[in-house]
This record gives sequence, C-alpha cells and structure tokens, in this order.
Amino acid sequence: MVEDRSTEEFFDATFREVGIAEFFRKNLHMLGYGGTIKSFTTAVHEFLTNSLDACEEAGILPDITVKVLSRKGDNHYQLVVKDNGPGIPIKYIDKVFGKMLAGTKFHRYIQSRGQQGIGAVGAILFGKISTGRPFRVATCTGDGVIHTLVMDLDLKRNIARVHETIKEKVELEPENARGVRIESFYKDVQYSRGTTGAFEYVRRTAIVNPHARITLVEPDGSVIEFPRTSESIPKKPKEIKPHPLGLSPDDLVQMAKQPGSYRKLSSVLINECSRVTNNTISDLQEAVSVDMSMKPEVLTHNQAEDIVKAFRRIRLMAPPTDGLIPIGEEQIERSLREILKPAFIAVSVRRPTVYKGGVPFQVEVGMAYGGEAGRRVGSNEKLEVLRYANRAPLLFDAGGCVINKAVASVDWKRYHLRSIDEAPVSVFVNIISPHIPYTSTGKQAVAEEEEILIEIRNALMEAGRKIGRYLSGRRRDEELKTKRNTFLRYIPEVAAALAELTGGDEEAYRAALEAAVDRKLRLMETGEGEDEEEGGGTPEEADTSGDEDEEESAEVSDDEE
Amino acid sequence: MVEDRSTEEFFDATFREVGIAEFFRKNLHMLGYGGTIKSFTTAVHEFLTNSLDACEEAGILPDITVKVLSRKGDNHYQLVVKDNGPGIPIKYIDKVFGKMLAGTKFHRYIQSRGQQGIGAVGAILFGKISTGRPFRVATCTGDGVIHTLVMDLDLKRNIARVHETIKEKVELEPENARGVRIESFYKDVQYSRGTTGAFEYVRRTAIVNPHARITLVEPDGSVIEFPRTSESIPKKPKEIKPHPLGLSPDDLVQMAKQPGSYRKLSSVLINECSRVTNNTISDLQEAVSVDMSMKPEVLTHNQAEDIVKAFRRIRLMAPPTDGLIPIGEEQIERSLREILKPAFIAVSVRRPTVYKGGVPFQVEVGMAYGGEAGRRVGSNEKLEVLRYANRAPLLFDAGGCVINKAVASVDWKRYHLRSIDEAPVSVFVNIISPHIPYTSTGKQAVAEEEEILIEIRNALMEAGRKIGRYLSGRRRDEELKTKRNTFLRYIPEVAAALAELTGGDEEAYRAALEAAVDRKLRLMETGEGEDEEEGGGTPEEADTSGDEDEEESAEVSDDEE
Repeated sequence: MVEDRSTEEFFDATFREVGIAEFFRKNLHMLGYGGTIKSFTTAVHEFLTNSLDACEEAGILPDITVKVLSRKGDNHYQLVVKDNGPGIPIKYIDKVFGKMLAGTKFHRYIQSRGQQGIGAVGAILFGKISTGRPFRVATCTGDGVIHTLVMDLDLKRNIARVHETIKEKVELEPENARGVRIESFYKDVQYSRGTTGAFEYVRRTAIVNPHARITLVEPDGSVIEFPRTSESIPKKPKEIKPHPLGLSPDDLVQMAKQPGSYRKLSSVLINECSRVTNNTISDLQEAVSVDMSMKPEVLTHNQAEDIVKAFRRIRLMAPPTDGLIPIGEEQIERSLREILKPAFIAVSVRRPTVYKGGVPFQVEVGMAYGGEAGRRVGSNEKLEVLRYANRAPLLFDAGGCVINKAVASVDWKRYHLRSIDEAPVSVFVNIISPHIPYTSTGKQAVAEEEEILIEIRNALMEAGRKIGRYLSGRRRDEELKTKRNTFLRYIPEVAAALAELTGGDEEAYRAALEAAVDRKLRLMETGEGEDEEEGGGTPEEADTSGDEDEEESAEVSDDEE
Repeated sequence: MVEDRSTEEFFDATFREVGIAEFFRKNLHMLGYGGTIKSFTTAVHEFLTNSLDACEEAGILPDITVKVLSRKGDNHYQLVVKDNGPGIPIKYIDKVFGKMLAGTKFHRYIQSRGQQGIGAVGAILFGKISTGRPFRVATCTGDGVIHTLVMDLDLKRNIARVHETIKEKVELEPENARGVRIESFYKDVQYSRGTTGAFEYVRRTAIVNPHARITLVEPDGSVIEFPRTSESIPKKPKEIKPHPLGLSPDDLVQMAKQPGSYRKLSSVLINECSRVTNNTISDLQEAVSVDMSMKPEVLTHNQAEDIVKAFRRIRLMAPPTDGLIPIGEEQIERSLREILKPAFIAVSVRRPTVYKGGVPFQVEVGMAYGGEAGRRVGSNEKLEVLRYANRAPLLFDAGGCVINKAVASVDWKRYHLRSIDEAPVSVFVNIISPHIPYTSTGKQAVAEEEEILIEIRNALMEAGRKIGRYLSGRRRDEELKTKRNTFLRYIPEVAAALAELTGGDEEAYRAALEAAVDRKLRLMETGEGEDEEEGGGTPEEADTSGDEDEEESAEVSDDEE
C-alpha cells in the first residue's frame, strides 16, 4: 500500500503534459536550427518558401525582398522578408505566425514547398529564443488597410500574443497594396556566402523560380538582384485526391470515419479518391465480400485491408498528375544557361509517376558541363549537385538524400565522365510531389523511396547520354584536328617531291593535297567510309530516341494512355 | 474587395489546426518507423527502454520479457513486453500510453533512456495504423488489484480511449505483483536476427544492463535468456538542476517567469540552478547592473543576456555530476568478456564533464580485441561499433553519429591497429547525460557536439593505448619465439662441435646453451640490456600513467576538485 501510494505520488509529482511549441523549443535542432550558418539559412528558407507558395497559389508573379540587417551585438541580425502575395487576413495572423501545426497546407494534398504547418513559427520561435525580441508582421489583403502587428509567442498556449496593432502605412508594394512583410531578429547566427549560407539558398531559389524577382540585401548593404527571366506565371498546382493504390487500410478507415454526408462506402470511395468510378466499384464488389453500400463509419480495419488488397487486383487508372507542375525543359535550360554559362546543357523532364503505389511525383534533371558549372575548390573542379524539392533548395544532409544516392549510382564512365566528382559538372534535380517524403522535420533530405531513386537515376542517365555524345563529339573533333595537323606537316615535303619528280607545280600539288586531307577528314567526321573510328574504348549508346528501353522501372500500374 | 474576400475565404476554407498525434501519424518515419525491420526494432526499443527506466527509478532489479508472437497474415506480429517495475497508476494509463508529449521525464533534468514523452505512444500509433487493432495494458502498482485495459488511440483528442477494463488476473510476476504488461500488434514489419533487428537490439540492451534479466521469445518459439550477471542495483540517477553555464538567456527568462514563490531574482538563481550560492550572487552583482533583488517576473531578455555573460566571467563550480550513473569499468569489462570472449579488453571510463557550457555528460568506452569481437562478413573480420546513449543501444543512422565520427578521427595506426575497419575489434561507447543531444526524434544518432566528440576521442585513445601495448607485446612475443627457434635449431650442431673440440659432454653443452638462449631472450623481453629491440617502425607510447597530457581538451571551466 505504501508502495502503491509512492508510485501514484511519483506520477502526481512528475507527470506533465507538454505543448508542441515547448517541445520544439527544447528540440530546435529537429527543425534545422543547429549551427550558426545553418540556423540562419533555415529561417530565410521558411519565410521565402511561404512567400513563394502564397504567390503561386494566388497566381501572382512573385516580387520578394529578403533584407538582412546587421545589428549591434554578437552576430545579431534583423531579417525582413517582404512579398507581394495575397496577404494574410488579420484574423489568422496570430495562428499563421504563432501556432505550431496549423496552416493551409497540412490537410490538402497539393504540391507546395511547405507542408507541415511548422516552418514559419519555428523560425519565429528560434528568433525569440535567441533575442527575446517580439516580431513584427505587416499584412494587407487588398482592402486598402495595412495592419502592422507587434507580436510575441506564447509557448504554453501555442499561439502568438498581439502586443500592438499599428495602422500607419508601411512599405508595401504600392501598385497593388497586397502582401506580407515579416520582421524578426536573430542572435548568434551567421549570414554567409558559403555553400550552405543564406546567399546560396536565395541564389538557388532564384535558379528554379525564373518567374520570381528576388532582391537580397546583405548585411553590408550590398544589393543583389535576381531578375525575373520569365513573365509566365507557373500553372497553379491543384489539390489532388489520393489514389487508391497510395492508401493504407488505416487511411481508408480514417476517410470513412470523416464526419461527412456519405451514406454508402462506395460514395466515399468515388468522391474522396481519384480514379474511382461506378465501374471501379462494381469491379471492387466482385473482388471483396465487404458490402460497398455499407455505412462508411462502421468500416473495420480488416474490411479496409480487404479493400486495399482488392484495389491491387482490379483495373485502375494511374493517378491524375495534372496537379504536378514541373519547371519544364525550356525554363530549366534557360536558368542553367543564364547562371552557369556552361558549354553544354542536357535536360530531362520525366513523365509523372507514383511512389508507394499511389503518391504522384515527377522528376526533372538538368546537367550543365563546362563554363561556370561545377564547384571550384582551390584550382580544382568538382561536381556540384543542386537538389530541390518542389522548387525549394535543399542545402543540408546531402549524404542522406535520395538525390545524391541516385547520382552516385550512375556509371558515369559510360557517358565519357570518367571521374564525375572531379568534373566541371552541375547536376540539377527537382522532385515534385504533393507529399515529398522528407527524412526529418528539418526538410533537408528526401528519403530513399525506391521509385524516386529509379526515376532520378533514369533521368540522370538520359541527360548523361546527351552529355556523353557531346563529350565524345568533342573528343573526336580534337582527334581530327591532331590528324589534320599531322597530315599538313608533311604536305609541303610531299608536294615538293612530287613537283620535282613530275616537273608539275608545287603549289598546285600542295593545294590538291590539302583539299584531299580535308575531304578525307570530313568523311571521317560524318562516319562515311570510316569504320575503325567508331571502335574506340568507350561503348557507344544507341543514338536513337528509343533508348528508354535500357531503363530500370519500378513496378507501377500505368493503365492510363 | 473581391480579392480580399477571396483571400479570407481561402483561409476559411483551408486553414486547419492539426493535433500532434495526427502530425506524427502522417510523419511516422520521423519517429523511426520506416522499413520493415527498423520499424519493429523501434517498437521493441520504446517499450523495453520504458520498462528499464521505470525499474531503475524504482530501484528494482529488472526482470523483463519480450515476447514476439507470429500471427496469421503478412508479417503480422503480436508484441508483448512485460516488466516487474513499479506499475502505472490506473488514472494515468490513458495518458502514458495514449498522449503524445506527456510523461514523467520531459520536464525533469535526469539521466534516462526516454526523454521526450513520445516513444511508447508512437509505437502504439504505428501498431494501430498497421493493424487497426486496439492494444492491451495490464498494470499493478502493488495494491493487489491487476487492471487489464483494452484501449485505442483517439488521434484528434491525443489520448487513449478505454474500451474495456478487465479485472481477471493476468500473468504478472506473482512474488511482488507489480509491473506492467503491454500487448500491441504490428503488420508489414519484420522480426530479424540481423544487425539492425529486434534480436540484436535486445542483445545489445542486455550487454549494458547486467543487472537486468531479459527473456526474449522469438516468433518461432525459441526462448533466449539474457541472464542477470550482476545483483547490484545501479545507483538511481538523480534529477540535476541546470548549471548556469548551460543556460541561454531565454532559459533564464523562462525560469524567472515560472509561477513560483520567489520574490527576488537571486532566490530563483540559488534555488533553481546548481552551484549558485550567496557568494555567487555577490560576485554576479558586482559584474552586472541588473539588480539581483528585482522581481523575477519582470526580467527582460537583455538583462538575462547580461547575467548569462556575467556567469562566464565569475568563478563557478563545475556542475554536480553525481546524477550521472556510469555502467563502470568492472561491469563493462565483465559484460564484454562474457559476450565477446575476446583475447584482450581495454576499458576507459572518463570523468564527467559538460557540453554547451553546462550540460553534464560522461563517456565510457570499452574495446575488445580477438575472440568473438568484431563482425564477421563472410570470412572477413570487420570492426564493430556498439553505440549507446544512457544505456540504450543505437542501431541506426551510424553515419550521422558523433560516436562513429570519433572512431574515424583516431589515428589507430599509432596503436598497432593498421586498418581498424578490418580488425577483429568491438568498440563499445556509452554516452550518459540528462540531455542527450539526439539528431532527430527517432533518437538513433547523437549530434556532433564538440566536447562530446573530444571526450569520446580521448577515451578511445586511452583504450587504444592499452590495446596497442597488448598488440606490441604480442608481436614481441612472436618475434622472440621465432628467434628462440632459430637459436635452438643450431644448438645441437654447436653442442656436438664443442663436445668434439673439448671432449666435454654434448648433453651438458646443449643444456647450457639452451639456458643461455632463454636467459638472453628473457632479458630482451624485460628490455634490459637490449636497446635495438625498441627501435621498431612503430613509435612507442610513453608507458606511464601520466599519458593524459596528449589529450585534446574542450574548454570547460572545471574549478571543482
């Protein structure tokens, strides 16, 4: 009895509930706040992606300013991010910037940079902890009133407290008077121009958002303009309903239990999933004993399991993929050309497909060779991998990311890239999906889903083949030049000897011989009458458009088309 | 105006709040549930560590059964974990197993395996999602009543719903009738005997918990007993108050704002921190302009910053470390010997120290050479690294862990381990702290804190020196044996020749020569009269106990002792 009381007393004395904001306060590194450079880059990332997402969803060409102001004290900065997006209604302000696990994206199955409803609040939390200062938000939704609020986080209640609401006009784009401006403070962090710093983050963001104008103001006052190079507003990503092949039994149970107006299980499936029609339901009813007309709310896990299994046996169209908005071949090429000024570019935009059975995704790859492609480490050239997920750059945890694994898995020697790690090559990879499988809350690496790995690999090989052809062509050019020079060196002697033997004109012989050499070499170049030239040490790829056949493929049902 | 309404409408239609349980439901991989083997190992880990923590805190020698029962269907298991711990009071059951971010450990600064209040609920959530089945808990706190509850998670409310409470007696240790038994179900997972499987997890747990008896019942019915090899109950870890040097300004503000009964800031510091005395307050008052008698609740961030800076300028005793309970040299050696049967063991238990200025931690290292140490890959021997944090094994994410970084940073050649990756060596490392800086919610790797890296490195070098001496001794033994054999081979001839020359007794000569060789070699062995023997290719370490001087050291204030 004494024992019992002591156990209960122990619990009474020690058992506590913790708020989500308090949890992340103690575990800020899980949100990417660790290290002076990384922490600041993460904060910039959170606000910048929110602005881009907001503009995209509202169909606005983004015009964003990221201003980093140096303040007195130990690596102390003020960060101002201002956009011309749709603005945030005043009644949501305290939640958008103050509530963890709240937002417009978590429940919607849509391609966006943010997806968790943690990011911006995390950045503000980190700022609060490092400086104790309140933050400031100005918002205008186009009604002529600009609200400027001074706020502070209440960790216990997981919300922002509004200290002050100011009505004075602030610097917002005057032509439309819409947008958000967020101002927060950070200490013991570092603004850096290095590979993982905020500058590089903004630069990489600009690369994949040619429709955005981004202005970066550095702590020393330098202003860097990343101009808008495309005036076309990207298509708006659409909300996609989940595909049956991507559902787990528990997903199905949750879906059926949603308080809704469906009276039959079949209606839930038809209305809440993509690609389920009346015909699908008939096929399904033949495959399972679960009554498709049953009340959805009493669906059991076992029944759901039967249905999920049956979905794999019946005909289903592949998930709709029009909700996925790639950057596109032309834009990728233009961006890479503008920024890297390479000698050669190969781009491969794959068709959309699915992972985990039904989660749609798409991969686009660009490879740039020569020029300013690659990294410079001292005087050495190195491979550079530019990783993106839904157009947001990934700068950290490269080792754990499926993109780097895919790059490492390709046999680059086949494409005349003997040691790609030391080559002047930039590899650009963008993964698009309504649900990017990040490895952690910090969203810096994409998990190794088999199908994603294979798609990236195939795209890399496709681009690699083009690079390989370019490089093998360049090598052939160099070989031909060497041959020509060798021939030309002997022509004067041969011409002189011929002239002496035949009494002909030395100059005429020389001209004739030079013409013969050029003719011969031209033939070699086009491959006519020159067979041994192709027999080099490097196996040539079949140079046809049908070279898809050597690809690996993940087993996905693709009944469409 | 229309625009404005549409923005507000957009928010009204899409803005949602998400519960923490719903968040993790969608992001289960963040808790370690990814991959069939890893997922099941993680579930076993969560329940086993909870049981061990509970026994430890109650001063009970743990007797734990982990039963994995195979069920019909696709990799479908029932997991039963039963302990003889203090039990859980019935009124806390729904929270302990049903509420994320709740528990007895989060707020307390104490060495324990769990620290987040997420683990067990995460395992139950994963089970629920994969099977849809309710889970079952039996608990008895010693009052003679055993409660068995059938429960299910309510994700929206973040709590467990109790379906049924049964009073029939269940199989709990009869001699004390205390403890907890938890029964949950998992599908599409895999029980494995491989390096990351549940078996290995239990085995590694047994290695560092010699005071625990752990019984593992495998799906095929095999029963593996990890016996108790020590009857001494480990010292109970103590709650430690935070040290001033580990506090951030925000920590201090939070501490001052706690609704408490302190009327002066100085009382908060003296009572809520360790190592702050009236003398400290006097020193502090001389160093800052903040009035130490001020009301604590009005402390500003800037004032807190001044105090935190001042703490670094005044004399402070190092944090108390009696709350840290190492396994200890003797136990580590005994465990490693029992399990690995190595030819040689070196153990190094470091003194407690601090990271981030004031978070106490301690490192213990054991190295085993030969016997069954190391891993076998085919017929090759490989280095094995056994990583632990607060006695809980870490099986995943080795690449990102400070322990592996420390192992890789040591120049093992100095210790006669030319290629340690291919050596029959097991390296055991246990990090102890009230706050282990895990890299993620999955708690599988420890972040690279400079001071922790250095401590592990120093401990490894300490153990390495011992291994090096053993290996150099072993090599010398082998060289001596070779020499002796060479000498002995000539002795019969020399003895015969001497006998012929002098007419003496051949046998006597032979005996005398053999004795001379042995005497000479013994001298060589002890190093007397044999100088060139030491001049080998490997630099010898100074063989004194004062070899600490070559250590790196992190800059920590250590005024104590």
